[in-house]
Amino acid sequence: MSLRPLIAVDWGTSSLRGAQLDAAGRVVESRQFPRGIMTVAPGQFDAVFEACFGDWMQAPDALCLISGMAGSQQGWQEAPYCPCPAGFEELASALHWLQPGRIAIVPGLSCLHSDGLPVPQHDVMRGEEIQIFGALALTGRRDATVVLPGTHSKWAQVEAGRVQGFRSFMTGEVFALLSQHSILSRTLATDAPWHEGAFVHGVQLAQRTPSVLSSIFATRTLALFGSLPAVQHPSFLSGLLIGEELRAMHPAARDVLLVGNALLTGRYALALSGLGVASQSLGDEATWAGHAALAQKLQA
Amino acid sequence: MSLRPLIAVDWGTSSLRGAQLDAAGRVVESRQFPRGIMTVAPGQFDAVFEACFGDWMQAPDALCLISGMAGSQQGWQEAPYCPCPAGFEELASALHWLQPGRIAIVPGLSCLHSDGLPVPQHDVMRGEEIQIFGALALTGRRDATVVLPGTHSKWAQVEAGRVQGFRSFMTGEVFALLSQHSILSRTLATDAPWHEGAFVHGVQLAQRTPSVLSSIFATRTLALFGSLPAVQHPSFLSGLLIGEELRAMHPAARDVLLVGNALLTGRYALALSGLGVASQSLGDEATWAGHAALAQKLQA
Repeated sequence: MSLRPLIAVDWGTSSLRGAQLDAAGRVVESRQFPRGIMTVAPGQFDAVFEACFGDWMQAPDALCLISGMAGSQQGWQEAPYCPCPAGFEELASALHWLQPGRIAIVPGLSCLHSDGLPVPQHDVMRGEEIQIFGALALTGRRDATVVLPGTHSKWAQVEAGRVQGFRSFMTGEVFALLSQHSILSRTLATDAPWHEGAFVHGVQLAQRTPSVLSSIFATRTLALFGSLPAVQHPSFLSGLLIGEELRAMHPAARDVLLVGNALLTGRYALALSGLGVASQSLGDEATWAGHAALAQKLQA
Repeated sequence: MSLRPLIAVDWGTSSLRGAQLDAAGRVVESRQFPRGIMTVAPGQFDAVFEACFGDWMQAPDALCLISGMAGSQQGWQEAPYCPCPAGFEELASALHWLQPGRIAIVPGLSCLHSDGLPVPQHDVMRGEEIQIFGALALTGRRDATVVLPGTHSKWAQVEAGRVQGFRSFMTGEVFALLSQHSILSRTLATDAPWHEGAFVHGVQLAQRTPSVLSSIFATRTLALFGSLPAVQHPSFLSGLLIGEELRAMHPAARDVLLVGNALLTGRYALALSGLGVASQSLGDEATWAGHAALAQKLQA
């Protein structure tokens, strides 16, 4: 099957990335710009897009798919979330076309946690959905727990090729807040080298502590009592927070696919391994693979 | 029994408070200064103390007890933590005398969490121990779960008049970090009035969520989906965090004594009540009562 050339764009909060894919789904060229949606004034998205990818779009039958925060309220145009369970079918049907048949925003996913409470608890993602489908395409899997570490990491449960539901954790953001603004920041050597042993201690402690709000205070007392050298504290704190995420989620995890930058997926793989959970890691290639798989679906 | 006049001082991180108590333990006068230990240069503690309380100390048989951060590494002189289990006996024996028989720093307490890990996990308090003993003295209790809400709230288990152990939670600090520096701060109306219903929703959700790192993200999606009016979000977030503390600790709580400012103890009492746990609240009077009880012990 011969496909139209694809312009795959991942337009996030702080950066704008794009890739030109050939008819076989291979990356011909990729570009990155410091033009996340927070840097773009309302009404200027067309112009930024044209400046960054206009030459690629001159191909007469070019198809462009844009994932990420470009579809948020603060983005180019709002693309309403596609509710879970959602597979390729639902995602393809929910595309928000900026130019019909030519440029579309990929919607994010939403799900509802069934906590039985009077106020409904929604969870959301934008951009990760394309990585999830890319990871499935790259591995040939239709069932997996897909974990996307980051500022707001996501755990998605995929069955028969559809995202059944997912859960977000503010792990990365809380680590940054504690490191930069909390009482812990006074004794945290933020430029300290990574220390695997301290990280593993943190992950282990997280499995046994009654609450992460308590265990993070342990980083303060480690400093007071000199139980752990100061250069190991950031790794320990990282282990406490990632360990808390795993404490909550690893018992239900099956066939874990980690998707993200190698530094983070490496930490999660190590922590999961310590809890007896095997995993497979994928990097940025999952993003472009997701765009390619979705484009293929559109043209099938 | 006639006691020496007591000068009770609570020297914290950000404020310095003192009270003059008569021989019967009644407060004759109290003073407060914005001279927390963070404002005092090394070597200047004597001078600040003299300026604030020198007149009171002129009484020939005055006894002064100083609790709080004055005994920390950054304080007047370091008073090593008194390890738990600790009662009045241990605390009185561990006083750090600045002027023998006349001015003493009350040490904080430390305990070791038995998590069976290679790196020992210490927990610490400074200043709260005197409030705990004051609360016991005021209520005539010898067994209680004493909860001191705050920036780093504490849950102490007291048996037969001795603190067996305790646990700290960074609840107040994490609330401030999320409100001021996180992505949630963009939609949090920090000057919004208190909303009891939203707080209770938060407490309830905290009992059912797999992790607080996930539930706090719910505050973000409440804004996205308009599930809860924005003015109710700060109360909801407060409920999530205090609720997380209670989720961890309330099953083991017995005869709860809440000690702190009325606003905070009121929130904890409400949250505990929703979980079927009765409590009794005490305010600042517990601090001076603790000093008085300790002074009485010294002179018994």
